[in-house]
Amino acid sequence: MIRIAIIGAGRIGHVHARAVRGRNNVTLALVCDPFEQNARALAEEYDVNYCLDTDEVFDDSTIDAVVIGSPTQFHVDHILKAVNSGKRVMCEKPIALDVESAKRCINELGDCADQVMMGFNRRFAPTFSALKSRLDDGEIGSLQQLTVISRDPAAPPASYIAGSGGIFKDMTIHDFDMVRHFLGDIAEVNAVGTNASSEIAKQGDFDQVIVTLKSRDGKLATIINSRTCAFGYDQRIEAFGAAGMLSADNLTETAVRKATSTQTEAKTAIMDFFLERYEDAYRIELETFLDSIAIGGAVSSSARDGYEALVLADAATHSAKEHRVVAL
Amino acid sequence: MIRIAIIGAGRIGHVHARAVRGRNNVTLALVCDPFEQNARALAEEYDVNYCLDTDEVFDDSTIDAVVIGSPTQFHVDHILKAVNSGKRVMCEKPIALDVESAKRCINELGDCADQVMMGFNRRFAPTFSALKSRLDDGEIGSLQQLTVISRDPAAPPASYIAGSGGIFKDMTIHDFDMVRHFLGDIAEVNAVGTNASSEIAKQGDFDQVIVTLKSRDGKLATIINSRTCAFGYDQRIEAFGAAGMLSADNLTETAVRKATSTQTEAKTAIMDFFLERYEDAYRIELETFLDSIAIGGAVSSSARDGYEALVLADAATHSAKEHRVVAL
Amino acid sequence: MIRIAIIGAGRIGHVHARAVRGRNNVTLALVCDPFEQNARALAEEYDVNYCLDTDEVFDDSTIDAVVIGSPTQFHVDHILKAVNSGKRVMCEKPIALDVESAKRCINELGDCADQVMMGFNRRFAPTFSALKSRLDDGEIGSLQQLTVISRDPAAPPASYIAGSGGIFKDMTIHDFDMVRHFLGDIAEVNAVGTNASSEIAKQGDFDQVIVTLKSRDGKLATIINSRTCAFGYDQRIEAFGAAGMLSADNLTETAVRKATSTQTEAKTAIMDFFLERYEDAYRIELETFLDSIAIGGAVSSSARDGYEALVLADAATHSAKEHRVVAL
Amino acid sequence: MIRIAIIGAGRIGHVHARAVRGRNNVTLALVCDPFEQNARALAEEYDVNYCLDTDEVFDDSTIDAVVIGSPTQFHVDHILKAVNSGKRVMCEKPIALDVESAKRCINELGDCADQVMMGFNRRFAPTFSALKSRLDDGEIGSLQQLTVISRDPAAPPASYIAGSGGIFKDMTIHDFDMVRHFLGDIAEVNAVGTNASSEIAKQGDFDQVIVTLKSRDGKLATIINSRTCAFGYDQRIEAFGAAGMLSADNLTETAVRKATSTQTEAKTAIMDFFLERYEDAYRIELETFLDSIAIGGAVSSSARDGYEALVLADAATHSAKEHRVVAL
Repeated sequence: MIRIAIIGAGRIGHVHARAVRGRNNVTLALVCDPFEQNARALAEEYDVNYCLDTDEVFDDSTIDAVVIGSPTQFHVDHILKAVNSGKRVMCEKPIALDVESAKRCINELGDCADQVMMGFNRRFAPTFSALKSRLDDGEIGSLQQLTVISRDPAAPPASYIAGSGGIFKDMTIHDFDMVRHFLGDIAEVNAVGTNASSEIAKQGDFDQVIVTLKSRDGKLATIINSRTCAFGYDQRIEAFGAAGMLSADNLTETAVRKATSTQTEAKTAIMDFFLERYEDAYRIELETFLDSIAIGGAVSSSARDGYEALVLADAATHSAKEHRVVAL
Repeated sequence: MIRIAIIGAGRIGHVHARAVRGRNNVTLALVCDPFEQNARALAEEYDVNYCLDTDEVFDDSTIDAVVIGSPTQFHVDHILKAVNSGKRVMCEKPIALDVESAKRCINELGDCADQVMMGFNRRFAPTFSALKSRLDDGEIGSLQQLTVISRDPAAPPASYIAGSGGIFKDMTIHDFDMVRHFLGDIAEVNAVGTNASSEIAKQGDFDQVIVTLKSRDGKLATIINSRTCAFGYDQRIEAFGAAGMLSADNLTETAVRKATSTQTEAKTAIMDFFLERYEDAYRIELETFLDSIAIGGAVSSSARDGYEALVLADAATHSAKEHRVVAL
Repeated sequence: MIRIAIIGAGRIGHVHARAVRGRNNVTLALVCDPFEQNARALAEEYDVNYCLDTDEVFDDSTIDAVVIGSPTQFHVDHILKAVNSGKRVMCEKPIALDVESAKRCINELGDCADQVMMGFNRRFAPTFSALKSRLDDGEIGSLQQLTVISRDPAAPPASYIAGSGGIFKDMTIHDFDMVRHFLGDIAEVNAVGTNASSEIAKQGDFDQVIVTLKSRDGKLATIINSRTCAFGYDQRIEAFGAAGMLSADNLTETAVRKATSTQTEAKTAIMDFFLERYEDAYRIELETFLDSIAIGGAVSSSARDGYEALVLADAATHSAKEHRVVAL
Repeated sequence: MIRIAIIGAGRIGHVHARAVRGRNNVTLALVCDPFEQNARALAEEYDVNYCLDTDEVFDDSTIDAVVIGSPTQFHVDHILKAVNSGKRVMCEKPIALDVESAKRCINELGDCADQVMMGFNRRFAPTFSALKSRLDDGEIGSLQQLTVISRDPAAPPASYIAGSGGIFKDMTIHDFDMVRHFLGDIAEVNAVGTNASSEIAKQGDFDQVIVTLKSRDGKLATIINSRTCAFGYDQRIEAFGAAGMLSADNLTETAVRKATSTQTEAKTAIMDFFLERYEDAYRIELETFLDSIAIGGAVSSSARDGYEALVLADAATHSAKEHRVVAL
C-alpha cells in the first residue's frame, strides 16, 4: 500500500485526491495546506488527517509519495525537501518561474531529476497519447510539422495574471512540453505576442501568442494560444508526417449532431475547461506516477523536462518582447 | 450534330436546355409547349424555334432526339409517337400514373423499351454514382442492406398533390428506382404511411412513408420519406455490405464549418431542393443520354426500369392503404 | 447502506459488480450462481460471500436489492420471488421468452410492476439520453420519424441462437424498448427478415431484420438490425422532428483522425461490442436503479415496459414469418 | 463583346481559355506564345488565331483585355505594355521576382495599379470567399487569429525551383495575399524554414516554412507550408474571432464516407492539385475580371496587392535566412 500526501488543497488537490481513491494499493494519508479551511475541507471529504505545515509531511516517515500542488514559488523547495526525505514526488507545472531556480533544483536533484514527475497532464490525455503512439508506430512516417492549438475559454482574473510569470510560463508551458514530447530538443524559438484584451496588456503580459519552434534535427512546430476562446477550451494537435497526418480534434460532451434550417452536423459546444476536458488525463497521469513508484526508472515527464519547458518559455518571452529569434 | 427537341418548357425543360448548351456536337433545335408564353420564353433564351403542338416535333425529320418533360398523363403518348417517328427519347419520371398504361407502353415499345431513357436523375448524382461504383468494385463486399432517406424541404401545393398519383408514384418513385438500381428485382413490398400534415391527409394521400423491400435474392432495403424537412432536401444513401459500409451524405454549399459557444463543426444548411442539389446529376444524365445515342445499346435507366419502378409504387400504395405485405 | 445481491455471475454480473463498487452507500453483499466456479470467481474478486441456490438470496433479510442476470427462462420466477421477499429488483432483458409468462409476471406484480427495473441499458447511454432530453426540450419540434440502427459485430454461436427466442426477442428487444421510449405505445408492427448467414437460417431464425412501427398517434419508426457488422457495433439513432434532426453517431475510442493518400478524416473503427460501448450506460443504469430505491416511484424502464417490448418482439416475429402486418 | 488575348499558352492559359468560353459577351480572340507548338495547340482547340510575338497582341486594337500567363520575369514588361496600349490586364502571380521591379511597375502604373488584376485565385475559391463574407458579416465577431495551411502534394522539379525565386515568392505568395486579404497591412514578419528534402536544400531553398505575421492593428496570422504532402493538396483556413471560429476544410471529390473494421467516416483522399481544387476559383476569378472591365473601379486583388504580397515574401526570405524578425 502506497501512502500519499497531497500538498495544496485547491482545485488540483481535489482532482488528485479523487484519482487516488479510484486505485487499489494506494491510499490518501495526509493533506497539507496553510489555509486550514482548505486543508480541512479536502481531508474531511476523504476522511484523512491534515496539517498546515509542509514539514509535517516531509517528517512523516509513513508517507511514501507526495503530490505537490502548492503555489509555483514553493515548488523547488517542496520538491527538494520531499526527495531529500526519501519520498517520491509528482509536482504541478511549472517547476519554477525563473530558469535559475529550476536549474538549481535539477542540479541538486542529480539523478533523481528523472524520477520526479511534473504534472504535464496533456501527455496522458487519451486523444493525444493515442495520436502519439500511432505516430510512434509509423502510421504517418516521420513527423515533420506539429501544430498545437491551445486556447482557454476565458482569461483568469488580473490578480492571477500578476503572479503567473506571464502567458509563456503559465499557459504555453503545457504546449512547450508537448512540442518537446513530440519533437525532442529545440534549437530555435520564435515568438510573437499581441493583446485582444487591454486589461492584460496593462499588466505587461500578452493574451494571444504564436510560437514557432525548430528542433535540433530541423522539424518545425507551431503553437497558437489565446487566453479567451468563445467556443470553449480549444485543445487540438495536428501531426503532419511524411506519409500522412494525424489530428486530435476537440472533444464534445456527446456524439449527438443536429441539423436545422441553419446548420448541419452541428455538435454541441466543446468541453469548457481543463478539469472536465482533462479529467481522464489527470487520472491516467496519477496512475502513471503510481506505476513509476512500483516500477522505478525515469518518468514522463520528469523534473528535467519541466526545466527544459521553462527554458523554452523563457526564450519565448525574450523573443516576443525583444522582437528577435532566440537560439538555444 | 445531334438535334434535340424539348417537349415541356417548364422548370425541367430549362435544366435540360442548359445542359444541351454545354455540350459539343449537339444543339437545341426546337422547343414545344402548349402554353405559348412558356415555349417562347425558353426558345428565346436559347435562340431557337418553338411550336405549340407536339406533332410538329414528331413530324420534323431533322430532329434526332426528344426530351420529354410534359405532364405525366402525356408521357406514354409522347414516348410512343417519338419512337415511332424514329427519334431517341429521354422522358421524365414517372412513365405513367397507372401500371396498365405503363405496361401497354412497354409492350408497344418492344425491344426499344431498353433504349428509351427515363429521367431518374439520382442514378447520375456524383455522390451516389461514386458510392455505387465503389460498391461494384467490391470495396465493402456484397451488399446486404440499403437505406435510402429522401425528404423534401416543403410539401407541394394541394393542387399538385391532387394530380400527383400519390406520394409513392410522385416522390418515392425515385427511391424505388434507386433500390432496383442497387438490389435488382424486388420480391416483396411493405409500406406504411402517416400524416404530419392534415391538409395532405384531407386529399387521401400520405406525407410520410416508410417502405421496406426485399429483393428476389433476399437483400433488404428501407426507404424513408417525408414531404417536409426543416433542414432542407435530405438525400442520403447508406449501403451496408458484408465487409463495411459506404454512406453518401447530404451536400452543403461550402465546406466552411463554424464553432461558437453553442455549436461545433456546424456546416451551413444543406442544399435546399432538387434543381440545386441535382444540378450535376441532370447534366450528367443528359450527357449519358446523348452518349447512348452515339453508342447505342440499353440505357440506364430505361422505360422498362420506369415501368418496374411504377409497379413498386403501385404495390406500396396497396400495402400502405390496405395494411398488408404485397408480394410481386 | 444498501446491500446488493447479484444473481448470475456471468459477464453482466461482473459489469454490475464493478458499477456497485464505484458508488457510496451501497455494497455488494452476496453473489449467487449455480455454477460454483462462476460464483466463487466473482465473489472472490469483490471479497464477498457466494451461494449456489437463489433461495439463499431471497431468504437473506439483510439483502435490500437483487440484480438478476440469470438465464431468461428464470427471470419471471426470480423477479416474483425477490419482490415477494421484499427486495427491490433490477432484471436483465428480456423479461421472458413468451408473452404469456411475462403477462402473468406483470399481473402478479400488480403495482410493483412499475418499480421492478428492466435492464434496457441503452436508455442510459449518454449519447442517446442526451438526444432524448434535447428532443424533450423541443430543440427539433415534435418527433415524426425515428430511425434506430443496431448491428452486432458478430453473430453469437449456434447454441446461443437456439435458446435465444429468436432475433426479435433477443436483439431487437432493445430497439423495441427504445422505440417505445421515444414514441410511446405502438399500434402496428411490420417486420421483414432475411439471412446473410446460412447457419442461422438453418436454425429457423433471421440474422437481418427491418421493422417498421407506427405509434398510436401516427408517428413512424424504423429499426434496422444485423447479427454481423464488419465495422463493429453499429449503434445509431436519428430523430427527425418538425423543426430539425438530432443524430446519435457511433462512438470511437479516440477523436484522432487520419489523412493519407487514400483517406481523409478517417476515425479509428468504432467500439467493438456492448461491454465497451455501453460501459457508461450500465453504470448509469445501476445508479438510476439505486436512486430509485432511495427515491421510490416508477422506474425507467419497468417490468411493464419489459412486457410491452416483448409484445412487440412477438408481433414482429409473427409479422416477419407470416408476411403480414400485425395490429396491436 | 469583350475580346480577350491570352499571353502564355501553358497550363494556366488553358484554364483561362476554358473559363472564357463559358461566358456570354466575351470571346477569346488571340493566343500568344513564343513556343509555336504551345500557341498553335491552344489556338486550335478554341479555333482562334495565334502569334509568337507579344507586340502583335499589344498592337492589335481589337483586343480589349489581356490575360498574362508568361514566365514571371516578363510580367512587369507585359503588364506595362498592355496597359499602355489601352488594354485591361489580368496577370498571374507573382508580379515580379524582385521588389524593385515590382515597385517600378506600380509607380509607372500610377492609378492604374488598382485596376490591373493579379491572379490570386484563392480569394475566389468558394469555400474561402464564403468564409470571408461570413466573417465580414460579423458571424464570429472581429478576427483575431488567422491560420493558413497550404501544402502542395509534391515538390516541383529542381529546374523549376531554380527559377522560382524561392518558396516564399513562389508558393507562400498566395498565402501572403490571403493574409493581407483578411488582416490588412502587415507590420512584422517572422519566418522559419527547414528541409525535409535534401534535393531542395542543395539549391539553397526551403521546402517547409512557417511564417508568423502581425498586422498593423495587432492581429496575428500563421502560415504553414510544405512542398510535399502525402494526402494531397492541403488547403485550409481557420479564422478565429472574438465570438467563434470559421474553418474552411479541404475538399474531396465526393461526400461518400466509408466504414470498415479499421476506419470510420473516412472520406476519399482530398483533391490532388490546384487545377482541380481551384477549378471554380479560376473561373470565378476570370468572371470577376470581366465584370471589373464592365463596372470599372479597383479590382481584388490589384497590382498593388501583388506588390505588397511580394514585399512580404521578400521580408520572409530575409527573416528565415537571417534568423531575425523583419519589421515593415
